[in-house]
Order: sequence, then structure tokens, then C-alpha cells
Amino acid sequence: MSSLPLPPSLPALFTPHLPPSSSPPSSRPFLTLTFATSLDSSLSLAPGVRTTLSGPASKTMTHYLRSQHASILIGVGTALADDPGLNCRIAGCASPRPIVLDPRGRWGFTEDAKVLQLARAGEGKAPFVFVGGGVEIDEGRRAVLERHGGKYVVMGTDERGRFAWVDVLAAIQREGLGSVMVEGGGEVINSLLRAPENELVDSVIVTIAPTWLGQGGVVVSPERTGEPVRLTGVEWHPLGEDIVLCGKILR
Amino acid sequence: MSSLPLPPSLPALFTPHLPPSSSPPSSRPFLTLTFATSLDSSLSLAPGVRTTLSGPASKTMTHYLRSQHASILIGVGTALADDPGLNCRIAGCASPRPIVLDPRGRWGFTEDAKVLQLARAGEGKAPFVFVGGGVEIDEGRRAVLERHGGKYVVMGTDERGRFAWVDVLAAIQREGLGSVMVEGGGEVINSLLRAPENELVDSVIVTIAPTWLGQGGVVVSPERTGEPVRLTGVEWHPLGEDIVLCGKILR
Ligand SMILES: NC(=O)c1ccc[n+]([C@@H]2O[C@H](COP(=O)([O-])OP(=O)(O)OC[C@H]3O[C@@H](n4cnc5c(N)ncnc54)[C@H](OP(=O)(O)O)[C@@H]3O)[C@@H](O)[C@H]2O)c1
Ligand SMILES: NC(=O)c1ccc[n+]([C@@H]2O[C@H](COP(=O)([O-])OP(=O)(O)OC[C@H]3O[C@@H](n4cnc5c(N)ncnc54)[C@H](OP(=O)(O)O)[C@@H]3O)[C@@H](O)[C@H]2O)c1
Repeated sequence: MSSLPLPPSLPALFTPHLPPSSSPPSSRPFLTLTFATSLDSSLSLAPGVRTTLSGPASKTMTHYLRSQHASILIGVGTALADDPGLNCRIAGCASPRPIVLDPRGRWGFTEDAKVLQLARAGEGKAPFVFVGGGVEIDEGRRAVLERHGGKYVVMGTDERGRFAWVDVLAAIQREGLGSVMVEGGGEVINSLLRAPENELVDSVIVTIAPTWLGQGGVVVSPERTGEPVRLTGVEWHPLGEDIVLCGKILR
Repeated sequence: MSSLPLPPSLPALFTPHLPPSSSPPSSRPFLTLTFATSLDSSLSLAPGVRTTLSGPASKTMTHYLRSQHASILIGVGTALADDPGLNCRIAGCASPRPIVLDPRGRWGFTEDAKVLQLARAGEGKAPFVFVGGGVEIDEGRRAVLERHGGKYVVMGTDERGRFAWVDVLAAIQREGLGSVMVEGGGEVINSLLRAPENELVDSVIVTIAPTWLGQGGVVVSPERTGEPVRLTGVEWHPLGEDIVLCGKILR
């Protein structure tokens, strides 16, 4: 696949909002939450409908941000909807390790999945798929995954079939991955924006496109568990027609 | 009430997005749609819950924008929820004429309503209240309104009890008001953002605060009647911690 040119001014804008390049050993990975929405806070027109929201400059930014993290995390909803590549397409950049949260083992990928195609081509890494304890893993699929350098990681689930975010981060840490960029989708983002889980979020980078997608989209809006969730240390960077918001969650 | 100081740099930012000071006679008033939302596109925590979203600089901007319009329009939901003043508090500025859409005559104001207090004090204008044809108007209330320089304006309604936006604009034009700033709330904004009504919108100015209010708020998100509603000629202006988006609806 063709590589994306990196505008020289881009890295400096985001350095303060990214995992520090040298940092004291930490008990959990640096977590950056990043996604693109419409003005009405939709990620896509509907689950499973790939929606181009932001312009080409935002795409380059996303790929740059990916290169600055050891891993990139999505929910299985996004894996099924978008068949995403989850690599970095800027020349000379390292791609992050994809992590897919799939507690019920719903992701029925084959070796044609884009993320595996890219791994075969040496243009990305194979995913670590986090599954719940009760899931029966298809042995053929496990073999495909492991052949590409990926694996299944078995996790405990709560009564709602969910992993606790502290457990997810501990597992990422155990894999030697010091940072994670969480890209989506709606359910993953909303569950991390809510208190008290949002204490695990170190940095937030949101791209907003000047468009209303209208009612019925996949909406980012956390469940209310206390005060509104406010950002602090806020910066707004125009990027093409879009705006990029960087900040930290105020505690 | 104390007046707001106007930062000298503010007017130039907004001039391209406001009614032209001299313009050829037009068949309908210039319509600016302006409001403040959270990142999750909420106007308030719930209907009737006054919610401070944007910072002090945005307040000054709102009052400046009001001074640049002949009238300011809200739905009765906002009149009931917020008891708004709808005037301009920048020294030496003219206040716009308030217009309240109240098709069923639900607004049971007394002379203690903030907008009438301000009219008595010479710090604002009394409202024109647009009511549906079948509404029985309380004569005492009509007298209060007219004593302050306001009035009731009777309008035709459709089968859903709504005025057509073209009729609302025609009535504003008949009152000699060449421009209108539509400030809210949720229902009014959503009905104007939707196609084909959004053809009546000349300019959009949205302030976004870096906060998620969470699920359950009064949300701006138009009903889907066609393509996503996209802005063009977009400008983003940081204002305190907030961002102000100016643009026109793309057709
Ligand atoms: N604009 C953007 O930046 C962007 C980025 C990414 C995705 N998207 C869009 O978002 C949409 C998908 O969003 P979505 O909400 O449907 O799906 P999602 O958040 O990607 O995935 C949700 C699923 O992931 C699993 N999951 C989430 N949190 C978990 C946890 N804490 N523990 C265990 N499992 C967890 C659950 O799987 P089970 O249901 O199997 O239990 C859950 O249903 C797509 O339309 C995609 O295009 C947009
Ligand atoms: N953040 C901001 O910038 C901002 C600005 C303004 C308001 N707000 C908030 O918005 C909330 C109120 O929003 P809302 O959606 O409840 O109320 P709203 O939009 O102010 O008023 C809705 C009501 O106005 C009447 N109406 C609206 N469109 C009409 C039309 N085309 N023809 C005839 N009547 C029409 C209807 O009255 P009937 O029901 O009687 O038929 C309708 O129920 C409040 O919480 C307020 O604080 C926020």
C-alpha cells in the first residue's frame, strides 16, 4: 500500500499529548483515547456502516499517532464493521500491536482480514485477540493467527461479559507494551470516558468534522455516573476543515 | 445589570458570518443559527436544567452577536426552562427584538419575566410571542405584554401544531426585522438543521465546550432526511477553552 507523507509540523503539535519517549517504569500502559466524530458526536452513520468523516490530513495524523504507541486497541464491533488495517502507513514508522476485545469470540476472521494481509506483507503486526474464559477457540483460526505472529489472550469477564479495564491494561503491560492508543468504537470509548474508568485515560485526542450525521448514528456520549466529564489543558488544532482537540480528563 | 466589555478583536472575526450592514432588499430575513454544545452535542443536562457550558468569553460573543441582529428567536421550551433575558449587555449596543415560538400558548409569563424586567429598565425589548390560531389569549397577559411594547402574533399551524419556517420568516420580515438570530433550544435547532428547512439558514455559529455532558441531555442532531448536513467555508476560532465554529450549510 502507498505510504502517507508526514507534514514536518505535525509531530511537534502532538508531542505533549503522547506517551513520553523515556519515562520511569509505570504500573500500567500510557492510554491515549482517540477518535473522530461529527458535530453530533457520531462515529459512523450506523454500526457497520463505514463513514468517512474527517479529511485526508486527519488520516495522516491518525497514522502518526499510531506510530507513537506500542499498541492500538479496538472493540470487536469495529473489527466486524470495518475490517481495519490498524497499521502505520507513514514511511519508516513502526506499526503498533493491534489488540481486539472479543469477549465472546465473535470475530470470525480468515487470513484475508486486512490486518493479517498487512502482517504478511511486513506492513503491520498481527493482532492479540482478548477473549473471555468460556470461549471455545477454533483451532484453525488460532493457527492462522499464530502463524502471523498474533495470539489469543484469555481474560476473566464480569457478570455482563465484560473485561475490567484495569485487567485489560494489566494484560497489555504483561505483553511488554508500554502504551496503548484506543481507537474505538462507540462502546469502547463510552466505557472509558465514564467515571471511574476514565482515571485510566492519560490523554484524549478527538477530531471533529464540521458535519451533522443526524439521528441514528453510533454516538459517543458516556453514561452519567457523576459530574460532566471535562477536559483540561485543552488545545485546538485546525487540520484541513476539521478541528483536533487535545486534552486530559479533569479530576 | 452590569455591562460586558467587548474585546476589540472580536467583531472582525465574525463580520463575514453576520448579516451584511447594507444589503439589497431581500425577500426574507438573514438567519443566523447559533448555540453552544458539549462535545456530545448537548445544549443542557436536561430540559429545564440551566447548564453552564461555555466560558465567559463565549458569553460576550453571544451578546455581541445579538447586537448584530434585528431579532432573536427561541422556542417556548427555552422560555419556560431558562427565563432568558435575550438582550445585549455590551455598553452602547442595541438589543434585538425577542421572538418566542409558542404555538399552544404555554408561556404563562408575568411582568416578573426577565425579558419584561429588562424592557422596563430600558435594557432590552419586549417579546413578540408567535401563537397558533386556536389559542385563547389571556387578556391580562396581553395587556402586560403590550404595555412593555411587545405583542402576540397569530400564525397558522400544520397538522403537528407547528408553524412552517417560511411563515415564521415571512412574519419576521413583515415586522420590519431584517435579520434573526436563532438561539435555541433543541427542537428549534434540529428542525432548522434538517433538509429542506436548512435552506433558510444563512450562517451557523456553534460554540463547543471541551466537556461531555453524558447521556440524557437535550441533544442537537437533526432528523435524517437525506445526506449528512455539512458546513462549508468553515472557520474555527478558539475562545477561552472553547472553540467557535463558523460556516454555511453546504448545498
Ligand atoms: N470515527 C472513528 O474514529 C471510529 C473509530 C472506531 C470505530 N468506529 C465505528 O464504531 C462502530 C463500532 O462501534 P461499536 O460500539 O458497535 O463497537 P466497538 O466499541 O468497536 O465494540 C463493542 C464490542 O466490543 C466488546 N467490548 C467492548 N468493551 C469491552 C470490555 N470492556 N470488555 C469486553 N468486551 C468489550 C463487546 O463485544 P461483545 O458484544 O461480543 O460482548 C462489545 O459489544 C463502527 O461503525 C465503526 O466504524 C469509528
Ligand atoms: N446551550 C444553548 O446554546 C441553549 C440555547 C437555548 C436553549 N438551550 C436549552 O434548550 C432546552 C430547551 O430545548 P427544547 O428542545 O426543550 O425547547 P425549544 O426548542 O426551546 O422549544 C420547543 C417548543 O417550541 C415550540 N416550537 C418549536 N419549533 C416550532 C415551530 N416550528 N412551530 C411552532 N412551534 C415550535 C414547540 O412548542 P409546543 O410544545 O408548545 O408545541 C416546541 O415544543 C433548555 O434546557 C435550554 O436551556 C440551550
